[in-house]
Amino acid sequence: MLNSYPLVKAAFRLVQRALDRQSQSPVAPYISAEDLPDRIDFSLPVTGVSDAEVESLLDQIAQAAPRTASPRFLNQLFGGRDDAALAGEILAVALNNSMYTYKASGANAVVELELTRHMARIVGFTEGEGVFAAGGSMSNFTAIVMARNEADPDIREHGHDGAAMTLYTSAISHYSITKGAALAGVGRENVRPIPCDDRGRMIPEKLRAAIKRDLDAGRRPFLINATAGTTVLGAFDPIRSLAAIAQEFNLWLHVDGALGAPIVLSNKHRHLLDGAELADSLTWDAHKLMTVPLVASVILVKKPGLLAKHFSEDASYLFQSDSNDVNFGGKSLQCGRTNDALKVWALWKHHGDAGLGRCIDRLFELARHTADLVRQHPELRLTKKPESVNVCFEAIGVPSDVLCEQLRQRELLVVGYGEVDGRDVVRIPMVNPDLTFEQMSEAVELICEVAADLRNNPEVGAQSVIDPRCC
Amino acid sequence: MLNSYPLVKAAFRLVQRALDRQSQSPVAPYISAEDLPDRIDFSLPVTGVSDAEVESLLDQIAQAAPRTASPRFLNQLFGGRDDAALAGEILAVALNNSMYTYKASGANAVVELELTRHMARIVGFTEGEGVFAAGGSMSNFTAIVMARNEADPDIREHGHDGAAMTLYTSAISHYSITKGAALAGVGRENVRPIPCDDRGRMIPEKLRAAIKRDLDAGRRPFLINATAGTTVLGAFDPIRSLAAIAQEFNLWLHVDGALGAPIVLSNKHRHLLDGAELADSLTWDAHKLMTVPLVASVILVKKPGLLAKHFSEDASYLFQSDSNDVNFGGKSLQCGRTNDALKVWALWKHHGDAGLGRCIDRLFELARHTADLVRQHPELRLTKKPESVNVCFEAIGVPSDVLCEQLRQRELLVVGYGEVDGRDVVRIPMVNPDLTFEQMSEAVELICEVAADLRNNPEVGAQSVIDPRCC
Repeated sequence: MLNSYPLVKAAFRLVQRALDRQSQSPVAPYISAEDLPDRIDFSLPVTGVSDAEVESLLDQIAQAAPRTASPRFLNQLFGGRDDAALAGEILAVALNNSMYTYKASGANAVVELELTRHMARIVGFTEGEGVFAAGGSMSNFTAIVMARNEADPDIREHGHDGAAMTLYTSAISHYSITKGAALAGVGRENVRPIPCDDRGRMIPEKLRAAIKRDLDAGRRPFLINATAGTTVLGAFDPIRSLAAIAQEFNLWLHVDGALGAPIVLSNKHRHLLDGAELADSLTWDAHKLMTVPLVASVILVKKPGLLAKHFSEDASYLFQSDSNDVNFGGKSLQCGRTNDALKVWALWKHHGDAGLGRCIDRLFELARHTADLVRQHPELRLTKKPESVNVCFEAIGVPSDVLCEQLRQRELLVVGYGEVDGRDVVRIPMVNPDLTFEQMSEAVELICEVAADLRNNPEVGAQSVIDPRCC
Repeated sequence: MLNSYPLVKAAFRLVQRALDRQSQSPVAPYISAEDLPDRIDFSLPVTGVSDAEVESLLDQIAQAAPRTASPRFLNQLFGGRDDAALAGEILAVALNNSMYTYKASGANAVVELELTRHMARIVGFTEGEGVFAAGGSMSNFTAIVMARNEADPDIREHGHDGAAMTLYTSAISHYSITKGAALAGVGRENVRPIPCDDRGRMIPEKLRAAIKRDLDAGRRPFLINATAGTTVLGAFDPIRSLAAIAQEFNLWLHVDGALGAPIVLSNKHRHLLDGAELADSLTWDAHKLMTVPLVASVILVKKPGLLAKHFSEDASYLFQSDSNDVNFGGKSLQCGRTNDALKVWALWKHHGDAGLGRCIDRLFELARHTADLVRQHPELRLTKKPESVNVCFEAIGVPSDVLCEQLRQRELLVVGYGEVDGRDVVRIPMVNPDLTFEQMSEAVELICEVAADLRNNPEVGAQSVIDPRCC
């Protein structure tokens, strides 16, 4: 039967080649986006091309794609490649089931049901439920809409009444909270950035004061967002304290655990999420700390029924049979939806809770090791002791943006920077448990070498960074 | 290197097996969602299981998953399997690039750029741009937010001011419009369902009257949604007439072409989308009429810059280099995002505009053939002459919901029903150009056989349908 699918056969070869390539040369060639169309024929023709040409072009594209599972890809909060998870994903895309109904997804809906319930129980939402969303931003948005609608039961039907509805999130939380507020019609300026302590944790007293200020001014607070793993520092808000404030003022508490939620699987580190069971909802991305292919984000809700209450629509052409438990379309922002559950389920079955917990522990060890390397190096300055899996530092005398761009353009390392206390710092997130201490030592060495070169030749770096906001 | 990924190797076997299985037995066994956990061990263990066990379980899940590319899957608006598209998707998931920045996605961002610009030009948005979204509902939501923000430039920052903002869509349009209005804080009751003519097309005079009524009442109309291919009838609103009304009242015109947009590729049928170039935005799903694996939805916008204007957020930890043209994160609802572009690009390169146009023509031929079969059959009643690729009919004397459920439970055919003029009718959407006239004749025969049986044994069907809203 595969003979009827010659390009699927070719895809198996292409995957094999991509995996080989990554082990042989861990960083893709640096070619700018402007130059790439001269090298690869991206154009879409009137008349189609042969199988062989499609295969060749796909291979060229693969060569010019960042090798995100390589030890030299330390750029964003994802990386690595779990064997079982990728296997589940390859099967899922070939099966091509849409997750809105059991009628269209079959066993895959039961996979999503079992998995999301298991995750809910682990968080401490004993009766909780969940659904996969198209990334952490969309999971957070799902929570914002539920919180908004619970605070004002008229909004879903009648729309906003014009009252200022305010929400609270740490000053260093992810941009999706502000974005979600804009999408939901709440408005970006009604997001209150609450100051953090020197470890990046929201200060409860500042939160309480901000809420009281808004109440006194006649505004309508509705949501506290606690970040479990900030984007740059990997810091954890004190969830238990924030839960007490949420209860005091009767606000929805959401935990943005896009980065940090899987840490509940580690007996050693789950204290970072202490109090998560008191939240109303929680975002858990499996494509970050669990090395599952993008995207695999779950929005978990403590009180069952709330997803359906806020997102179901009557559509007799779609929801025709079977229980609503497995007709996930009524619980999701989306209608037709990819099967993101199978890859996470395959990972989980393969490693078990315990194995996944060990992977998390390993990430912390890698972070500690990397922080030690930085601390011991005379030309590097550790920004702070890591709060979890992110290591932030500067190379003395070299702007971090220049350093990261040069590392990339020299095809040595793909790494990014972030702002801490007004300074750009290099950020290495440990998200790939397959990395070794040696590989991290090599990465830090490469950073030091390029930093030294830039220190000696400052003109090299001066023009290397293009601000994306300017062009 | 593939030896380091034994389960990826296994996945290739599993895909092969799934393809074989589909050709040997085109309908999966019927097992209820309640019974399935007794057959397959979905539970998530503390200690992981072996590679062999993961492979075996994935195979069991695949066996109990609807075979959506088979000629007997005529259920929702997707189906079939394009070789090049699936190849592109398998490679994409193995490469695992996140589409927010060029730094993380490389050549894949250029693929998305070329493809979305090509699609924009074909629609007639000569300067237009686009971005992939997580399904048609999310593309439509993207348009609703842009229209809302353009109508009231204060909303993004300050939130809704409480004015009733109204939008207009045909009474038989997709539920995502109402859902999107709820998400955006506009409110479900501010969606005006405009009556359609007997061919399912929104009546422009009714639309104009509704807008005037709202203006007279002091409400704030902001958006007209024209449906290009309704979910049940496959009907097309008269876009050119609606565009004139949008212009008259200075409203945003969105075209929900989730189903019908690819029809612009057919010289023979593109007149159905006449006037689309006058719209402000358009939703185009490639996972429906183009047999690309789920999901592959594009939101196209005529005026470049609007996506960034309404969706970009400042995030120095993410957007660090390269042009914003290829840093798609600033144009999307999402942050981390799957590479949905590569599969569509592979399809397009393989078939070309012309080949894709021929596939669309084939779908219309299949619909006409199927409608003829229905028309000629004494026990079937064609609901209406097909407006495009959907064929709607009833088996005389047999409720359509009962008929569809029996076809499924007898493992003969997976097909759904929808409401037309207050009656449930069987709906067959022609979305798979690989189907043959013979296969459609067989499908219609199966429907007639089961209908005859139900007519003779009405008690069989009486208890076969479970209303998902009740349980």
